[in-house]
Amino acid sequence: MLTERLLRQVAFIKEIDKVKYILRKTKLLHSDRCENDAEHSWHLAMMTIVLAEHSNHPIDVFKVLKMVLIHDIVEIDAGDTFIYDAAKSHTNTNEELIAAKRIFGLLPPEQAEEFIEIWKEFEDGFTNEAKFARAMDRFEPLLQNTSNNGGTWVEFDVPYHKVHEKKSAIGLGSATIWDYAERLIDESVEKGILRKDS
Amino acid sequence: MLTERLLRQVAFIKEIDKVKYILRKTKLLHSDRCENDAEHSWHLAMMTIVLAEHSNHPIDVFKVLKMVLIHDIVEIDAGDTFIYDAAKSHTNTNEELIAAKRIFGLLPPEQAEEFIEIWKEFEDGFTNEAKFARAMDRFEPLLQNTSNNGGTWVEFDVPYHKVHEKKSAIGLGSATIWDYAERLIDESVEKGILRKDS
Repeated sequence: MLTERLLRQVAFIKEIDKVKYILRKTKLLHSDRCENDAEHSWHLAMMTIVLAEHSNHPIDVFKVLKMVLIHDIVEIDAGDTFIYDAAKSHTNTNEELIAAKRIFGLLPPEQAEEFIEIWKEFEDGFTNEAKFARAMDRFEPLLQNTSNNGGTWVEFDVPYHKVHEKKSAIGLGSATIWDYAERLIDESVEKGILRKDS
Repeated sequence: MLTERLLRQVAFIKEIDKVKYILRKTKLLHSDRCENDAEHSWHLAMMTIVLAEHSNHPIDVFKVLKMVLIHDIVEIDAGDTFIYDAAKSHTNTNEELIAAKRIFGLLPPEQAEEFIEIWKEFEDGFTNEAKFARAMDRFEPLLQNTSNNGGTWVEFDVPYHKVHEKKSAIGLGSATIWDYAERLIDESVEKGILRKDS
């Protein structure tokens, strides 16, 4: 029985290797190489550990770590959705739910259930842990784009108001980090790497 | 003051982007693409969450997560050391300690100290948390090599006894996982993808 359990866990561990092939639109710092979801998730986990003290509310950091580590695993089946893609909502889609059930379903049932719940909590964004995790998810590409002369903002002609609107979710997790992020956005307009709306 | 603190944290977060460029010898599953340290650290974190129940002793899983997430950051300065490299010890070197002090030293002092302590604890391998973290670090390349027709074992002509010796550290963290890992090693010899010593 224990072996059967371990075999299911190993099957899942092998399956999620595919996360390393899912490319995001954003690039590494000072680079034109796309970041993949495994690298992205690792970076969010590190940011969570380092920045947790700035959360607006007390949070279970261990739970936030689980969220950011697993949040993109569904993209193995559903693919990455660009945050500024108007045609496809970045929020929880049915396709992603089916993916979550298949991939987390490789695990022993109660682990699968726990992972699906954590993933849903992240997607819903209602709890303090989800708000902070989502703040990290919005903050990292900001650091990337400002280091890459505008990065995806320039590449996909994204204007200031869209960036400001999407990034404002950072403030739901941390007012301190949002204060800093807003300054980075304003500086980007001044530097001409983010287009002010006409 | 808070801004000064946040700026130090952001400087660290930017610096560790370099972890994504450090290539390991081992390849992704069923692939000839080298894994980088960020992908590797993410995978170990996922393995830790999934497999923690198999630890020989009760462990603080949050602490193990911190260990596996940061354990290779020193390689930004010190580079990756191949586990079967006889000329260069994989254990804690002076070069790595200098790297730890510089990179973690970008953080606010008490955070820098905490990270250096966690990294040292991992390297020393004495605590239950370090034993489990190190078990994950040894187990992942075993899954990779067995999926890649021997992978680095074949590439660098590593014989059975060396693999068995290095991998036996898995048992210090989890007898259950070591039992399974030993079976994978034996099967590899039978399949001819791991050379039995003459």
